[in-house]
Amino acid sequence: MSSATSQQAVASLHTEVTRLRHELQTLKGEHESPAAEQTMYVGQYLVERLVQLGITKMFGVPGDFNLGFLDFVEDHPKIDWVGDCNELNAAYAADGYARVNDGKIGVVLTTFGVGELSAMNGIAGAFSEHIPVLHLVGVPSTSQQKDKPMLHHTLGDGRYDAYYLASQQFTVAQGNLTNKDAAAAEIDRVLTECLVMARPVYLMLPTDVAYQRISAKRLQTPLNLEPPANDEETEEFVLNEIIKLVEEAQHDAILLIDACAVRHGVKKEVEDLYKHTGFPVYSAPMGKSVVAETYERYGGIYVGSISSPAVKDKVENAKLILSIGGLKSDFNTGNFTYHIPTQRTIELHSDHTRIKFATFPGIGMKRLLPKLTARLQSFRAGATALEVPKFQFPVPKEDNEIISQSWLWPRVGKFFQPKDIIVAETGTSSFGVLDIPLPQDSIFVSQILWGSIGWTVGATLGAAFGGLDRNLNRTILFIGDGSIQLTVQELSVMIRWGLKPIIFVLNNSGYTIERYLHGMTRKYNDISNWKWTSLLDTLGGEEGKNCKSYTVRTKTELSALLDDPKFANPDVIQLVELIMEKNDAPRALKVQAELSGKTNRYVAED
Amino acid sequence: MSSATSQQAVASLHTEVTRLRHELQTLKGEHESPAAEQTMYVGQYLVERLVQLGITKMFGVPGDFNLGFLDFVEDHPKIDWVGDCNELNAAYAADGYARVNDGKIGVVLTTFGVGELSAMNGIAGAFSEHIPVLHLVGVPSTSQQKDKPMLHHTLGDGRYDAYYLASQQFTVAQGNLTNKDAAAAEIDRVLTECLVMARPVYLMLPTDVAYQRISAKRLQTPLNLEPPANDEETEEFVLNEIIKLVEEAQHDAILLIDACAVRHGVKKEVEDLYKHTGFPVYSAPMGKSVVAETYERYGGIYVGSISSPAVKDKVENAKLILSIGGLKSDFNTGNFTYHIPTQRTIELHSDHTRIKFATFPGIGMKRLLPKLTARLQSFRAGATALEVPKFQFPVPKEDNEIISQSWLWPRVGKFFQPKDIIVAETGTSSFGVLDIPLPQDSIFVSQILWGSIGWTVGATLGAAFGGLDRNLNRTILFIGDGSIQLTVQELSVMIRWGLKPIIFVLNNSGYTIERYLHGMTRKYNDISNWKWTSLLDTLGGEEGKNCKSYTVRTKTELSALLDDPKFANPDVIQLVELIMEKNDAPRALKVQAELSGKTNRYVAED
Repeated sequence: MSSATSQQAVASLHTEVTRLRHELQTLKGEHESPAAEQTMYVGQYLVERLVQLGITKMFGVPGDFNLGFLDFVEDHPKIDWVGDCNELNAAYAADGYARVNDGKIGVVLTTFGVGELSAMNGIAGAFSEHIPVLHLVGVPSTSQQKDKPMLHHTLGDGRYDAYYLASQQFTVAQGNLTNKDAAAAEIDRVLTECLVMARPVYLMLPTDVAYQRISAKRLQTPLNLEPPANDEETEEFVLNEIIKLVEEAQHDAILLIDACAVRHGVKKEVEDLYKHTGFPVYSAPMGKSVVAETYERYGGIYVGSISSPAVKDKVENAKLILSIGGLKSDFNTGNFTYHIPTQRTIELHSDHTRIKFATFPGIGMKRLLPKLTARLQSFRAGATALEVPKFQFPVPKEDNEIISQSWLWPRVGKFFQPKDIIVAETGTSSFGVLDIPLPQDSIFVSQILWGSIGWTVGATLGAAFGGLDRNLNRTILFIGDGSIQLTVQELSVMIRWGLKPIIFVLNNSGYTIERYLHGMTRKYNDISNWKWTSLLDTLGGEEGKNCKSYTVRTKTELSALLDDPKFANPDVIQLVELIMEKNDAPRALKVQAELSGKTNRYVAED
Repeated sequence: MSSATSQQAVASLHTEVTRLRHELQTLKGEHESPAAEQTMYVGQYLVERLVQLGITKMFGVPGDFNLGFLDFVEDHPKIDWVGDCNELNAAYAADGYARVNDGKIGVVLTTFGVGELSAMNGIAGAFSEHIPVLHLVGVPSTSQQKDKPMLHHTLGDGRYDAYYLASQQFTVAQGNLTNKDAAAAEIDRVLTECLVMARPVYLMLPTDVAYQRISAKRLQTPLNLEPPANDEETEEFVLNEIIKLVEEAQHDAILLIDACAVRHGVKKEVEDLYKHTGFPVYSAPMGKSVVAETYERYGGIYVGSISSPAVKDKVENAKLILSIGGLKSDFNTGNFTYHIPTQRTIELHSDHTRIKFATFPGIGMKRLLPKLTARLQSFRAGATALEVPKFQFPVPKEDNEIISQSWLWPRVGKFFQPKDIIVAETGTSSFGVLDIPLPQDSIFVSQILWGSIGWTVGATLGAAFGGLDRNLNRTILFIGDGSIQLTVQELSVMIRWGLKPIIFVLNNSGYTIERYLHGMTRKYNDISNWKWTSLLDTLGGEEGKNCKSYTVRTKTELSALLDDPKFANPDVIQLVELIMEKNDAPRALKVQAELSGKTNRYVAED
């Protein structure tokens, strides 16, 4: 057995011991006072567990195999059924809800076959981007699953497991609650995996089992959501190695924060690290807003070749880069143009650590970080001597009235407030917001790895609800006219619930990001022009009453609107149509498209 | 080897021989004149094959991995890129296009991961309902597929085959065109399977291979779309057995036509059969409009217990039932309440025949039917003596102005014209249209087995295009206010293309079919009320110019509108909001809900 394998074995044994101890404790609670045993329906047990986890909203679409269960949701005082327009939007919303609520899961409920498959892209996106989402599916009764009649919503060939098999590709745990006696433990297992792995799980709830009675005792023991312990000896070795490298770097060590720092719940630990050590700190695009962008030793976004020259220089020339929660996708790394040699890199991940070329499986950052912070505090004096470029993007002077990409993003940057949730659609919006410093405690929401267009509309719905749970400020969405067409109906759900997001629609006549990738003048990148300012009123609103819409064509008009306190502190949902140039794009997108065009080009053979 | 297995083996050998002969012929054509060999890009070859199959429209959404291929589509004079608002709608449209074009496939083009997964419910629906749809996916280049970088649209863990594996559950053939030398034969194989099996197939086109050059020679040989030959000896035996049973039935034999008669292309053969024999003919719901409903010996729809008493009596008491293309799903059989003993049933299917309890694998109806017709003609005189109940549904007299379900359907029945395409959404609409006789050469489009709500909006787009290809009359959609919210944006594509469907939106405040199944007064069956008559104008239309919208509240208003020749022969898209009662439903739906509630009930344990 190699050393790495043996370490891995020790780590998994630790995990298993913890799990078994917890299960024993849970069962002990279950059997303590059998005389007064309280019972409840399986469906109710599930709802109670979700409520225990602090979940206040369930997304989804009703369907005949989940209606009975929905009674339990509707009747519970602490959780609301949102009722989305379609399942994909609902999955997106569950994802957005989880993102602003670090540590909470998003829940989407669908029906067998037709409903669940519509949600699949949303679930796969949550898998790709490390978001804990429970995909709960109302399915035929246990006797129907056994006899396999040709029910509606089936494939007509008796394969009742086809959807389950497809789902396995995109979830880290699956369950089918066919046995009421195992149901509670199954529910607990699947929910625990969802949270600990920070990835989607899939749970089938048969119509009959939802209404079978079980003991309520397990609910007395909360789920064990602690990450597994690190092997002490290995951890000590890793800590010593890191300290040694920091010493060798002679005060030229920096921190680079990425997606998994927030996805695996170490935002607070990371903050302690950078505040106590004074190390300069940078973010990858997917880690944007994990570190407060107003922090004086925060230098901005590192995206390989796409980075601003100052950031590129500081990051790539540092003697040591301590990368936390790294996720090196193309759009997150300037199309794989990191110039950080492994020789100078330490990587902290949720379930392993990497020092230069050596991997240490099972050494997770959640438990490592506090110890690291304690040991690195002594370097503070030296570290703070290192200069950090100021992260800023002043509004440029342009002597025309066109709302250009180069002017728009810094200008709206001045509009942002602390605790805002800023949602940016894949394309010009996400690239545009990247360069802009965000205020204290604001949250940046974008889908940089998965990049499914239209995602932000559903995600905005979920994020706005999550913001209410956490007492955050406004939810602000930036989306292009091409992308919003995919998922537009979800605006109606925002209106119905009285949510007040501010939605900026960049009307630039089609799929601009695609024009930059291929087909600048092609018809297939064109779309229909809608009456954007009629949209809210048509989809269930009353313009001027519970919704407001604006068209803005010039810099002066937009500035006036942004400066209007009634607009900036809205009491209703607002939509702003921004008239922009068809072929304009933010700097970062232009460079990315150029780089990506080189690797993904359509070069015809002669 | 059992007899059935041996027959199956013979049948597959026949198929394989035919395939090999055709492949040889194709290759021969390919090598005939190598000197003057013409070459083309793989992407162009694929487009040419589609054009050869008579396909004039390609549905889908552009994405960075399919943009290069789209150039070939946009540049081809005989095929149009439709450009849908999202992928699910596009898949629905491809399905609808194939349905009205018997024998043609529908094509939907998506991009790797994000796009293709959004289409999955649409593809699974086509699988379930036997619709030939090509799902073409633009995927990363062959070198990227080999090296597996963490590209956007990936799961971030290097599993480039995850979407392919999920797709296998819902398609009958799959291909990944990674090798240009095999590409043409792969394309031919997958397209042939699609058409012969009448089910969806999945094809991945890497960005680089789309632009590699291959020989164009294979195009000279058309695809071989003939169904496999029946084993002669078995077929003769089957024919004799059928004749014997018809004789024994003493002129009391009837025909029952179902879905697969149209899905597997025997509409003409079936017509020859019923016209030449004079046998009374009935349809299952999914077979509605395969038989001309004006035909004097057509008796209407048989749906088990839900059937009208006259039809139930005639069908269930016939001495012999010759079922053609049967597909016995719950909603297609009155929740499995067929009272037709196997003892009195002969079933003809695309790939087997069943006589009472005996199955004959490999004896397909396409080749069997003409021989059967020839042998059964002599029974005509006796058969025509049998009385057939007249299929009719007169408009009832109701002394109020409410647009009731019982009045609406027979009233719109009088509005239908020959060659109309009538699209009915799952729910009140499909149950409502069922009872109404449709005119000559009209086509009934509904998704009775799969039953995905919202499907008809995309399907209407595809059906309207298919209608243009075939010179059909109007496309008329009936959909509820709950269902249309799932897929509403596709109206904008209809407007952009100048299509002229008539869309009836049944505004009955929510999911009425679900209220009948469970939760009559539950909030989760409520939806937002939209301004239906603003919808077309908002989504790219100009009310009164290229679109017209109406709200109708009374019987008198609706009759006046239907009788207005300008409305009935429209030159623009029209949307009619019908104000209806929340808890009203067609007769058939009420009975179905009652039956289905019994098997799928939510009975709480105490």
